[in-house]
Amino acid sequence: MTVSIVEMSPRDGLQNEEKVLSTEAKVELVSRAVRAGVRRVEVTSFVNPRRVPQMADADELMTALPRFDGVRYAGLVMNERGLDRALAAGVDEIDVVVVATDTFCTRNQGMTTAQACETAASLVAAARAAGVFTTVTIGASFGCPFEGEVPLGRLREVLRRVTDTGPDELALADTIGVAVPSGITERLALAREVAGPDLPLRLHLHDTRHTGVANAVAAVEAGVSTLDASIGGAGGCPFAPAATGNVATEDLVYLFGRMGVGTDLDLDETIAAAGWLEEQLETRLPSALLRAGGFPTA
Amino acid sequence: MTVSIVEMSPRDGLQNEEKVLSTEAKVELVSRAVRAGVRRVEVTSFVNPRRVPQMADADELMTALPRFDGVRYAGLVMNERGLDRALAAGVDEIDVVVVATDTFCTRNQGMTTAQACETAASLVAAARAAGVFTTVTIGASFGCPFEGEVPLGRLREVLRRVTDTGPDELALADTIGVAVPSGITERLALAREVAGPDLPLRLHLHDTRHTGVANAVAAVEAGVSTLDASIGGAGGCPFAPAATGNVATEDLVYLFGRMGVGTDLDLDETIAAAGWLEEQLETRLPSALLRAGGFPTA
Repeated sequence: MTVSIVEMSPRDGLQNEEKVLSTEAKVELVSRAVRAGVRRVEVTSFVNPRRVPQMADADELMTALPRFDGVRYAGLVMNERGLDRALAAGVDEIDVVVVATDTFCTRNQGMTTAQACETAASLVAAARAAGVFTTVTIGASFGCPFEGEVPLGRLREVLRRVTDTGPDELALADTIGVAVPSGITERLALAREVAGPDLPLRLHLHDTRHTGVANAVAAVEAGVSTLDASIGGAGGCPFAPAATGNVATEDLVYLFGRMGVGTDLDLDETIAAAGWLEEQLETRLPSALLRAGGFPTA
Repeated sequence: MTVSIVEMSPRDGLQNEEKVLSTEAKVELVSRAVRAGVRRVEVTSFVNPRRVPQMADADELMTALPRFDGVRYAGLVMNERGLDRALAAGVDEIDVVVVATDTFCTRNQGMTTAQACETAASLVAAARAAGVFTTVTIGASFGCPFEGEVPLGRLREVLRRVTDTGPDELALADTIGVAVPSGITERLALAREVAGPDLPLRLHLHDTRHTGVANAVAAVEAGVSTLDASIGGAGGCPFAPAATGNVATEDLVYLFGRMGVGTDLDLDETIAAAGWLEEQLETRLPSALLRAGGFPTA
């Protein structure tokens, strides 16, 4: 078995960093990720640039990005206008977000969870008609910064609605980094039950409370081997208090490499990309491997 | 089941921090750990103060420490002189270290692994005669900064020698933070096989490569529920390059609390202790919970 990493740094990583990278720097980041072995990259989000100024160059970025064999570029979209832009820009995948709680969903995208599911259904249908791969991500699946615990019954209902939108892939997101391995096991089992045996599942982890790596292990043990991660552990969520970055890509590459599972990524190249990104962002990224280096070294 | 945490911050935490805390501050640290719920504390090491100046006040510290019902104080010892000091100071436990590789063992304590096992045997016998609880910790059980991988056959041999010293408890240490969950499972099973079914096992983790929390989960799944941790994630090892602190106590308290396993520690008190320690050390500690706080908050 191999873990498949979806690289989040250009989107989830950069959208919450203070420094806004140039389009040219984003192209370099994506190219470095691809050189490290990444095959799916969420490169940007097609959202209101006044709300997320870090992503204002979404259209130009897609134009500027070189294409590599077998590499797919995804864009996050939240509404019809975003979808139109994403399709015009030539994305290979769209990632549509539905937040599991009404309070957070309203703050994040100005609609209730039920409304977001309806929107997701039309976005998925339109993207599919255009031949574009579709993922629906359920944000705050493991806890909400405003409502606290997300009851299993609530998640089941959202899972049912999201499954009904007919995506090619369904992702659960621990947006604020509160999940623990037992919760990962429980909620991925629930997702599998509701979504049925054939829909590919994916997990989006943040390492806010240092459980990200343990949660990744639990996911793989539960049979979910498509994991979101961000080079350097960059990022967070501008609409979630105290959120920090995704679990660092290089931390997962080390972990799964040493466990004999593998990720098809090169650890040294990934660490080098994290070091480069840290220089660009002029901040200290939370990556462990960037500080410690791999093992054994010889 | 409950996880039992052995608090390492006064010894493993402080010995590698640049700032040397006063005896009075160490008393406050231990008292705060106890207030949070800790029942075993490794308070100091009785080693050469020229090599580890942070521990030069070992004897005075033991005199100054208040006693709390049910709380045991341990001292790390490496030789007969250290044991004499520890016994005179009135420790409840000694922790004797044997490093699994000759290169690291020689750098750490000036003798080969085999010699360290002989020393451990005499220290354990003398401590037991004095009615003091004995732990032998095998350092670098999961990897060595100088020799690289530690073969299973080598660890088996060291485990056999250490078991023969007759300790009350045997600890495996991931001194440089290179272990991953599959290795934890494998090496704890080996330790159980060699040590037999009755010898209590304990695990000493560092979070150098962000695998500490995942490794703690693997340990508990393997039936080893006595875990070393350090408030704030302070520390490292002065003789191991690029080593960082133990897994943070509060990170484990959050993890196991939310998993329904429990630690008998109060999360808020533990986080408060980490915040206090960070101020004392005038550095940024790697704790996640100190930054993010617990969840849910209400």
